[in-house]
Amino acid sequence: MYVIITYDVGVKRVGKVCKKLKEYLTWSQNSVFEGEITKTLLLQCMDEIESIINPEVDSIYLYEVRNPNHIQKTSYGVEKSFDDMFL
Amino acid sequence: MYVIITYDVGVKRVGKVCKKLKEYLTWSQNSVFEGEITKTLLLQCMDEIESIINPEVDSIYLYEVRNPNHIQKTSYGVEKSFDDMFL
Repeated sequence: MYVIITYDVGVKRVGKVCKKLKEYLTWSQNSVFEGEITKTLLLQCMDEIESIINPEVDSIYLYEVRNPNHIQKTSYGVEKSFDDMFL
Repeated sequence: MYVIITYDVGVKRVGKVCKKLKEYLTWSQNSVFEGEITKTLLLQCMDEIESIINPEVDSIYLYEVRNPNHIQKTSYGVEKSFDDMFL
């Protein structure tokens, strides 16, 4: 399946959430990761994310599209690179 | 169709992009908007967004899902509210 995950978490947890998502998905932009992933790995990823976040203040949205052909992505402007942002 | 739009734009243009997207879609989180929209309105929205952004430094990603039933959204933690963030 294809997933998009967006996060809005406290400053102290941004690095941990970002690092964890990067183990499973591709960084897309700002606080957005995306990519193809199996249901099993997705459950594992979200379990790990849930153990990092503070559910009273942090927010994670997971969008799942079972068939990647059902979603189309278009970019406007520049394509952001993870390395530009974080290295 | 159902769309998700994420943006990563220069500070000077964040307010304009956010305001424009709010005319067409629902604010979701951080720099993410989403919602159902017709193809005609989406083209109009993206035309207007393109006239605001600086394509050399800004980045907009548009994810389109033709059938809203093909996408499933799950929230973890709190649901963010536009009013909490901006009002």
